[in-house]
Amino acid sequence: MLSKNQIKLIKSLSQKKYRQQLNLFIVEGVKGIIEFLNSDFELETLYTTKPIFNAPADCILGISEADLQKISTLKNPNTALAIFKIPEKKKPINKGLIIALDAIRDPGNLGTIIRLCDWYGVKDLVCSINTVDCYNAKVVQATMGSLTRVNVSYLDLDDYLKSNETEVFGTFMKGENIYTTDLPNEGVVVLGNEANGISEAITSKVKRQITIPQFGNTKSTESLNVANATAIVLSEFRRRIIEM
Amino acid sequence: MLSKNQIKLIKSLSQKKYRQQLNLFIVEGVKGIIEFLNSDFELETLYTTKPIFNAPADCILGISEADLQKISTLKNPNTALAIFKIPEKKKPINKGLIIALDAIRDPGNLGTIIRLCDWYGVKDLVCSINTVDCYNAKVVQATMGSLTRVNVSYLDLDDYLKSNETEVFGTFMKGENIYTTDLPNEGVVVLGNEANGISEAITSKVKRQITIPQFGNTKSTESLNVANATAIVLSEFRRRIIEM
Repeated sequence: MLSKNQIKLIKSLSQKKYRQQLNLFIVEGVKGIIEFLNSDFELETLYTTKPIFNAPADCILGISEADLQKISTLKNPNTALAIFKIPEKKKPINKGLIIALDAIRDPGNLGTIIRLCDWYGVKDLVCSINTVDCYNAKVVQATMGSLTRVNVSYLDLDDYLKSNETEVFGTFMKGENIYTTDLPNEGVVVLGNEANGISEAITSKVKRQITIPQFGNTKSTESLNVANATAIVLSEFRRRIIEM
Repeated sequence: MLSKNQIKLIKSLSQKKYRQQLNLFIVEGVKGIIEFLNSDFELETLYTTKPIFNAPADCILGISEADLQKISTLKNPNTALAIFKIPEKKKPINKGLIIALDAIRDPGNLGTIIRLCDWYGVKDLVCSINTVDCYNAKVVQATMGSLTRVNVSYLDLDDYLKSNETEVFGTFMKGENIYTTDLPNEGVVVLGNEANGISEAITSKVKRQITIPQFGNTKSTESLNVANATAIVLSEFRRRIIEM
């Protein structure tokens, strides 16, 4: 049975300040945990209701369904909850295609964007300091293991773009048509906040404003969901490699 | 002040069976409500804490913040909650590009897929009976008003595809590379359930299996999020119009 202190510690990890203080984060669900076990991430403790994991015995703790319910961040917990160590920060390599996020707030959006970077072979995702934390349990969940393969960095985006030597793109409501403009293999593409888009300070660092044109009636003034916009942008940059 | 019965009725609309029984659904948030007021949807009642809406006076009811909190489906209610009538079903037109969903369960996914259809000028979205209801409050919220412009039909997908005369595409882990294969302007594209993909029965109706190739290390066996896959598919079909 889990002690009150253990439960308290695990529950504290739903807050960013305790994750940063303890350098630990939560991974839930069998599939996700296996992905992290098979990666360079270091396991702290694995709480599981079934003995199905290949992990060091001294890190595994069998628990009851009732205990799992107590510590889980999910409505319907799935077999196990693991605590991994947050690895040391690695600087972005600044090579190839890089996605930069300006104040993305929704954990589901960040999670699926990490998954998209993994799919399209983007090694580095750089995020403004006020982007949601990638070790947030909902983000980790939505990445489906992709967080083990994409290097997510939090930094002063303004400074980063200033010092970057490759071309800086940004998605806007108006700009070059992404389908007909030339796109290189290298560069940084900035995507903006769900409600406000790319901030003014960052806009001034963008050399090429690109847009995903609307094909329907232009009655709608709404933008696309930022994760879907990222999907389209990555698809469009990568398909050019095939064309060449 | 709202009566207990009014609150009970509004709250009942979070369940599909009551939405279908009463033919009513909820729209929340100023932007979304305005989109529905400006559409063909018929307003039943608008509960608002501020007199900012252009709607028939006998349909508007001023309420307190406390009352809004009681009836809202959101953690942070935004000014108003409106109840609209569910319109009569319209058959899909079966012209142009059509998206078909096989058992999509996540309201956020369906909502952003409706938004994508709107963006890319897809008039008809057809859904298997076991796809999440498009009048679910979370779906309506995620469509950002696009539900007013896309005709969503629930039908026996198997029968529908059998009788369909245009080409039927489906997205799979293996198939024709979407970037290099020929894509027509017309046809139906099927996307499958979040966990299980396209069901066997529906797979047998698909004439052309297409795939979005991975560009990263192929360590990952995971698929893309279904809404992101829809974004890429729509982008790819539509960009061909520009190329021609």
